Amino acid sequence: MIAEHELIRRFAALLYRDAPPAAGEVPFGDDMARIPGEPAFLWTTDLLSEGVDFTVPPADWAAVGRKAMAVNLSDCAAMAVHPCAALCAISLRRSMTAADAEALLGGVAEMGRAFECPLVGGDTNAADQPATIAVTVIGRVDEAAPPVRRHGARPGDGIFLTGPVGGSLLGRHLAVRPRVREALAINRALRPHAMIDVSDGLAIDLWRVLEASDCGARLERDRLEAAIHADARRRAVQTGKTPLDHALADGEDFELIVVLPSDASAEAVAEHRLLPIGVMVPLRGCTIVDASGDETPLPPLGWEHRLA
Amino acid sequence: MIAEHELIRRFAALLYRDAPPAAGEVPFGDDMARIPGEPAFLWTTDLLSEGVDFTVPPADWAAVGRKAMAVNLSDCAAMAVHPCAALCAISLRRSMTAADAEALLGGVAEMGRAFECPLVGGDTNAADQPATIAVTVIGRVDEAAPPVRRHGARPGDGIFLTGPVGGSLLGRHLAVRPRVREALAINRALRPHAMIDVSDGLAIDLWRVLEASDCGARLERDRLEAAIHADARRRAVQTGKTPLDHALADGEDFELIVVLPSDASAEAVAEHRLLPIGVMVPLRGCTIVDASGDETPLPPLGWEHRLA
Repeated sequence: MIAEHELIRRFAALLYRDAPPAAGEVPFGDDMARIPGEPAFLWTTDLLSEGVDFTVPPADWAAVGRKAMAVNLSDCAAMAVHPCAALCAISLRRSMTAADAEALLGGVAEMGRAFECPLVGGDTNAADQPATIAVTVIGRVDEAAPPVRRHGARPGDGIFLTGPVGGSLLGRHLAVRPRVREALAINRALRPHAMIDVSDGLAIDLWRVLEASDCGARLERDRLEAAIHADARRRAVQTGKTPLDHALADGEDFELIVVLPSDASAEAVAEHRLLPIGVMVPLRGCTIVDASGDETPLPPLGWEHRLA
Repeated sequence: MIAEHELIRRFAALLYRDAPPAAGEVPFGDDMARIPGEPAFLWTTDLLSEGVDFTVPPADWAAVGRKAMAVNLSDCAAMAVHPCAALCAISLRRSMTAADAEALLGGVAEMGRAFECPLVGGDTNAADQPATIAVTVIGRVDEAAPPVRRHGARPGDGIFLTGPVGGSLLGRHLAVRPRVREALAINRALRPHAMIDVSDGLAIDLWRVLEASDCGARLERDRLEAAIHADARRRAVQTGKTPLDHALADGEDFELIVVLPSDASAEAVAEHRLLPIGVMVPLRGCTIVDASGDETPLPPLGWEHRLA
């Protein structure tokens, strides 16, 4: 059994042999990748597989298409860059109808249109296999603020969310609203030290920031409670877990984790409706501290792809 | 039953509602797509599916990776642009080992390295399904010559191949050598009116040029015979078809069809070792004319993805 993060570590070693990053460039392993020699652009690709990332029904093909685009736009949000254009490579299941295929691609285009990111081309295959959709988005760096990476969090920084999380499986996972505009505004106003989108789970995605930044986090239970989505509470009734479990471990929220310098303007934080959940600490690791001061370790809960 | 070209036609209508091309921009449906507002770049994506585009064995994972990159580099060749960088989204079959995954990505990176096109990032998933690899390549327009599109062929133009075709299934389909350097040199020296790579078959890919350019082609049987690859002759012994059948209908050669103005320098044509196969004519359609002057229609033979 090998986990995605271990594969990515191996891949990074392999890729850096090819294309070591220049000083100041975005390194491999962030939400978007650099294009060597072209610092004005970043790009990203995300692949969705039928049966793993979605099933039709309950999803419909247009919703799948919207999501395939949205997860890439969310990567743009995580780095605070402007999406410019998209490509879409699809392997259609041969039993899909032409109407299904059009609905799928229509969904991709529709979501792009909502973020001024036109779908401009792609590749169309068909196979006697579950469908696969791989969207690639190129984004332009904001002229007023540099892209936000994962590695800049420092002890003392505040940790915030752009919105409540958890329970996305009740429907929000198929109605992703990438926080592109919010991220651009937050970056201009507050210059975050680090950002990431909550795609695989609050805990695992926060851990990714901690690893990239070589520090730890202490989350406050009271504040986490205030950042639990109503869907997490509804979902907890179904699963027997706590709402907090769902807030910490459910993926596909696509809210952003925003790490701000300790002297960030409280007014600006309030204006952007950021929810505080904790602070960065020097020592690696992550804990949740309750009102009585007791600390509980928080492992990197969430979704991770694994090979057998 | 719906064919890929019909789907692409429907998709194009859908996409143009979003992003109508500006004057002089590359339209949808060519080998690479434009990035609106960024005329210095073109990009392309190609997806390979296990069981459709490759099987392991007889292929090994490194060869699959090399091919996944090579088909995108071949799109760069078809438009005569410089490949800059690549992303790779993979859905691994869960029964693959970590070594398989590394071999696959290593193959992608290796082929990119050979063309100064570093792999800079991607997405890694795993599923209980056949593997899928989607590579995206961005290319920079040559400073000395504009990109070559499909639509510029005119009656009287000569039709050439960069090399003999057919029988790729005997092994060349897994050892693709994209004609990037050849295409850049040919473009600078000869300014082709149109180019395309032979990915799905000489006949079907030539037909794509004819449709984009709204003209027809008359191929000469004698010249076609001289452009048959030795593998097509070996393959014909196995299949009972003629070597010419294989040269016309086998895909995955990745030689280029090059359409040159009638006054192209014979010296330059010889220097670039271009094989003449026929001429463009005004009337739509495609025929093969033999030594006695008899003409036979040539339908768009080759590989096309289809929905049920």
